[in-house]
Amino acid sequence: MRMIRWENGVVFTPDQTRLPLEEVILELCSVEQMAEAIKSLRVRGAPLLGAAAAFGVALGAYYSKAQSLSGLLADLEVAGATIKLQRPTAVNLFWATDRVLSMARAYRGTVEGLRDVVVLEAQRIADEDALQNFAIGKHGAELIADGDAILTHCNAGELATVEYGTALGVIRAAWGQGKKIQVFADETRPLLQGARLTVFELQRDGIPVTLITDNMAGYVMSKGLINKVIVGADRIVQDAVFNKIGTYGVAVLAHEHGIPFYVAAPKSTFDLTCKASDVTIEERKPNEVTHVGCQQTAPNNTNVINPAFDATPLKYVTGIITETGIYTKDHFQKFNKNFPLH
Amino acid sequence: MRMIRWENGVVFTPDQTRLPLEEVILELCSVEQMAEAIKSLRVRGAPLLGAAAAFGVALGAYYSKAQSLSGLLADLEVAGATIKLQRPTAVNLFWATDRVLSMARAYRGTVEGLRDVVVLEAQRIADEDALQNFAIGKHGAELIADGDAILTHCNAGELATVEYGTALGVIRAAWGQGKKIQVFADETRPLLQGARLTVFELQRDGIPVTLITDNMAGYVMSKGLINKVIVGADRIVQDAVFNKIGTYGVAVLAHEHGIPFYVAAPKSTFDLTCKASDVTIEERKPNEVTHVGCQQTAPNNTNVINPAFDATPLKYVTGIITETGIYTKDHFQKFNKNFPLH
Repeated sequence: MRMIRWENGVVFTPDQTRLPLEEVILELCSVEQMAEAIKSLRVRGAPLLGAAAAFGVALGAYYSKAQSLSGLLADLEVAGATIKLQRPTAVNLFWATDRVLSMARAYRGTVEGLRDVVVLEAQRIADEDALQNFAIGKHGAELIADGDAILTHCNAGELATVEYGTALGVIRAAWGQGKKIQVFADETRPLLQGARLTVFELQRDGIPVTLITDNMAGYVMSKGLINKVIVGADRIVQDAVFNKIGTYGVAVLAHEHGIPFYVAAPKSTFDLTCKASDVTIEERKPNEVTHVGCQQTAPNNTNVINPAFDATPLKYVTGIITETGIYTKDHFQKFNKNFPLH
Repeated sequence: MRMIRWENGVVFTPDQTRLPLEEVILELCSVEQMAEAIKSLRVRGAPLLGAAAAFGVALGAYYSKAQSLSGLLADLEVAGATIKLQRPTAVNLFWATDRVLSMARAYRGTVEGLRDVVVLEAQRIADEDALQNFAIGKHGAELIADGDAILTHCNAGELATVEYGTALGVIRAAWGQGKKIQVFADETRPLLQGARLTVFELQRDGIPVTLITDNMAGYVMSKGLINKVIVGADRIVQDAVFNKIGTYGVAVLAHEHGIPFYVAAPKSTFDLTCKASDVTIEERKPNEVTHVGCQQTAPNNTNVINPAFDATPLKYVTGIITETGIYTKDHFQKFNKNFPLH
């Protein structure tokens, strides 16, 4: 099922903050509406953010009143900058925006022609993501055995992508091959993407899923209830995988229990020009930690930190499942030497 | 401040499910009311549960209509059995109930005399807990240095005890010595005792505290934001410490980062007759995981597990701080040989 769709200057996508109790489809008609949707996590998930960013620039093109190529290009640059500002750790916002802008900057036709080119490129980015996820699923499913119990964190599912999912795409592909597997989903505080989204989409597809609080991951490992971990990624650098806060803790626990820890992500998530120490981790609003939804759980004036992501050093990663195959520890050693990703 | 108090057949204690937004004092007047308060975690915290259990039996004695010693004793046995049923992992419910019942069984005076003996013994259990906590604080404070940043999980504070706290008693004692320390508190899903109770009581006492979600523990360690962990315990057996779910994950992460991991608990928490594999872990209701308070966070009919505790093997424990001193790894090796605890 397509999670994001362009139709005559309107971007349709589910409001993920309303799931699972309400299924509301957003109709976004401006760069500002797309920016707000990204900032507030109505649209979230690394791969989906790439398509969303590209469609955001496309909205800028569609509604621009510019009469000249340079005027339209200026509007697109503003649109791109606005989109990128929303989530500083999400590399997909950057590459997708830049890809559309590069094409626009090189374009030498009419104003109307440029509008069409931008919209088409955004649609191509969305289509490519869907195809990549099917390929990730196919490669990853080879790692999954009949009877496996798999822990996942956050939502790297269909709802995080244009279609099919990355980590959950692997699970979907294995399930589609008739392997009897089951999934444990971390609820993933503070925003509960695991409870709200991962459980929702696996239930919908009939794949057995058990919800746990984040702090039960050690328990389920120590009791032998799971035998693999698969998560997504927001950015993969030379020495670490950035993903939703809490991923690092799960990886250390998996390592301690000898449980394979896999990351499923398209190669667009790789950013091998930098190291973990170069990355700014997005710090989100305190009320996400002091509240659950609208309900206040901590005293007034509670001091908090709220990093959206953490870095898992590659030593804890068994393999990275991409659309062209699986990278293992042997490959990681080459990442530092700008390992070419074909 | 006393957290539980007996006055003329009424037990006064804060309703901990209402904190931090409302400060409501329960007035419990029957065994059944005490049992409900224990089951629903209105009264919670390992040491406080010991006093609560004893006062529960005292309520049975106070309101019994029995005219004979044997009749009263029969009522007390029912009261004790009712109390013990509420939380199968909480060893304090067991020893405190048994201590009062043993004294009752051995008593050879009048019916009125037995009522008084039971009430007095319950009060003595409460007083002893307060004194033990002051002693735990004194011993533990020696481990704390000026400038330390300490992570704690759940609430092993004043609200978990009759007075002063165990893990937070150590922090209180160090703070009282003028050491400039700060605390990081895991929120502790599903019931958020860290967010609701630990932040509340440290804020009240002016001790700097920062709230994090449970899955940020690895992050704060990897960033060097904390340099010690102190938690409480619900039961310490030959080979492991049972404490609130999530403790085990924190312990593994601390171990991986070379951060000392301390347990603060009175010796009444020790149960060296058994091993971790002998202990039944309380499984609580699914709606604690699918909801936060009244707010539903997961789809309808979500499958969950909800263990209230986990077991941290002693290999991850740097030391256990008790009222008579600190037990370290050298002592642990003797636990298997029924190490005598003086």
